Amino acid sequence: METAEEARAYVRGAVRRMQGYVPGLQPGPGQKLVKLNTNENPYPPSPRVLDALHSAAESTVRLYPSPDAAPLREEAARVYGLRPSQVLCGNGSDEILAILMRTFVGEGETIAYFRPSYSLYPVLAEIGRARTREVPLPRVARASEMADLPLPSVKAKMFLLTTPNSPYGVAHPTTWIEKLAGKFRGIVVADEAYVDFAEESALPLLAANPRLIIVRTLSKAYSLAGMRAGLAFAHEEIVQEMMKVKDSYNVSRLAQVTACAALKDEGYFRAMRDRVIATRQRFSSALAGRGFTVLPSGANFVFAAPPRGLSAATVYEELLRRGYLVRWWKTGIVSDGLRISIGTDAEMDGLVAAIGEVQHGH
Amino acid sequence: METAEEARAYVRGAVRRMQGYVPGLQPGPGQKLVKLNTNENPYPPSPRVLDALHSAAESTVRLYPSPDAAPLREEAARVYGLRPSQVLCGNGSDEILAILMRTFVGEGETIAYFRPSYSLYPVLAEIGRARTREVPLPRVARASEMADLPLPSVKAKMFLLTTPNSPYGVAHPTTWIEKLAGKFRGIVVADEAYVDFAEESALPLLAANPRLIIVRTLSKAYSLAGMRAGLAFAHEEIVQEMMKVKDSYNVSRLAQVTACAALKDEGYFRAMRDRVIATRQRFSSALAGRGFTVLPSGANFVFAAPPRGLSAATVYEELLRRGYLVRWWKTGIVSDGLRISIGTDAEMDGLVAAIGEVQHGH
Repeated sequence: METAEEARAYVRGAVRRMQGYVPGLQPGPGQKLVKLNTNENPYPPSPRVLDALHSAAESTVRLYPSPDAAPLREEAARVYGLRPSQVLCGNGSDEILAILMRTFVGEGETIAYFRPSYSLYPVLAEIGRARTREVPLPRVARASEMADLPLPSVKAKMFLLTTPNSPYGVAHPTTWIEKLAGKFRGIVVADEAYVDFAEESALPLLAANPRLIIVRTLSKAYSLAGMRAGLAFAHEEIVQEMMKVKDSYNVSRLAQVTACAALKDEGYFRAMRDRVIATRQRFSSALAGRGFTVLPSGANFVFAAPPRGLSAATVYEELLRRGYLVRWWKTGIVSDGLRISIGTDAEMDGLVAAIGEVQHGH
Repeated sequence: METAEEARAYVRGAVRRMQGYVPGLQPGPGQKLVKLNTNENPYPPSPRVLDALHSAAESTVRLYPSPDAAPLREEAARVYGLRPSQVLCGNGSDEILAILMRTFVGEGETIAYFRPSYSLYPVLAEIGRARTREVPLPRVARASEMADLPLPSVKAKMFLLTTPNSPYGVAHPTTWIEKLAGKFRGIVVADEAYVDFAEESALPLLAANPRLIIVRTLSKAYSLAGMRAGLAFAHEEIVQEMMKVKDSYNVSRLAQVTACAALKDEGYFRAMRDRVIATRQRFSSALAGRGFTVLPSGANFVFAAPPRGLSAATVYEELLRRGYLVRWWKTGIVSDGLRISIGTDAEMDGLVAAIGEVQHGH
């Protein structure tokens, strides 16, 4: 009999050599942890979202969803001032990014992005046998310094710009993105997963920049990470091409229903976003007060490096021991810091107290 | 300013040249049609599924799903007598098929499949710039004839076998699939989307055939088309490779919850499956009694060609006028027949009556 190892030889070499993307830890049902590692929203979605979910459940689970998520496209178009044909819906924004790769980047072609930025990009490149060009992103002390960031001079088919950046949290100003779209000869993806917590979006640039594509998610500001709903905004001709390579029924009925309801309740959205931003400011000040270097954040997390004499590894492990799960990368250029999602005020106060204990060696 | 048409030049040539997959029509909310075109289940999912959905909604939509759909893997492993590590969960079985392409088939490599079979395969090949080899599938009058179908002699990286076939509905016997797996030097995918309505599955072949991969969906027999949940069964080493190329959070929390609950309620599953099969037998006899050529079906649909003097096009259009939506392909080798999903007994009786009207020119 043939062995499974022999069968594995049929796997594409590019895949066999891959590690795969490592998502942040999702604690099991038994683990009681304050989960501040994957930038979920600490607040539930709007009560209207849950109402919509419960009412739609019975009548809809049996039937396939709208293939192009038509009601969601319409609602998103209304909210963002676009035409429905300029909107593509995805199974989370991760699927949108995979669709972008399949639409634009063939084997041997190149994608470019800042390092650090979303660590999924090189994984998508490996899957598609694309080359990568990583442009170093310096740390800035003030958000305003981002306007002076030199434009990357790199040749590639597509530039993926995480803005606000992850894990740093700093946003690229719209004027800077406009200059990038002018200079870079390829598709510019503004991956705005965290933009709802920032001061501005690249959206106003879309009309005049057909090579610009904007990616959004309802996982963060709209508290729908579990439902899987992401959006792309682009010119109609580009959306049409992207539609060809997505799975036919990629967005579930209930993701469409809940995403529509979430977009509709703009008052709730603003209130929750403002709470998260207010907590972020308080928490950033508290961390700075404890000697941490805190990068200016336009996201629902902050990147912070502990003061001299205290390693990020130690803080990570000691916090975990105390029931707080934050994100720490063991290797690479961000290993000196932690990415901490913004939870409720009470959670962040508890975290600051726990950090105090770690600093004083309790 | 650059035009969108100029920006479109950055799209991969393979995608620009594509048509894209055309899913069966999903009528809008206002259209009152008996929907028999995309093989959904006419019955709702188990009441326990809806209970599970309602109880899970509030506490889970905010958080990301388990990246490997751990609870669903475990439940599927229990039901199908596998280890959880032999199960991969997807956003519907369409995503599983796309994952299989990305795992095994590089640009320029070849996939093979019967013509007709699932019309998504050539679309996936176009996206991945793979070549295709189509093997003609003859129509049989009796299911037992499928055992004598000559084994395709074709060289390819992967053979995709829709079994039961769509649109014909006939199943490939397990003994025949075993011979295929022995002869074909590549990955054999048994795409068993409809197998719950058939007499046997290729699953017992898995242990001895590490090049075999079995694909299932909860969209048909489990009435969860709107939730998006599919499964692949393979050897652990193969599942590990497939995991690398899937999106991190590809199966939503509520898809995981509802799929688990649906798999658990085996009594309900059997009862609904048996109802659909009984209706299929009645409906097939009624159609045959009206002079239609009805292929022997192991699925929740039948393929039927109208008697001489009546075109499939006419039947399709006249049924649509009477409020019945069935599937008809305008071109190609199946344009002489219709694929009709099995609805409730009442729906099928109404359909047969409508066909009678069409035959008598009312």
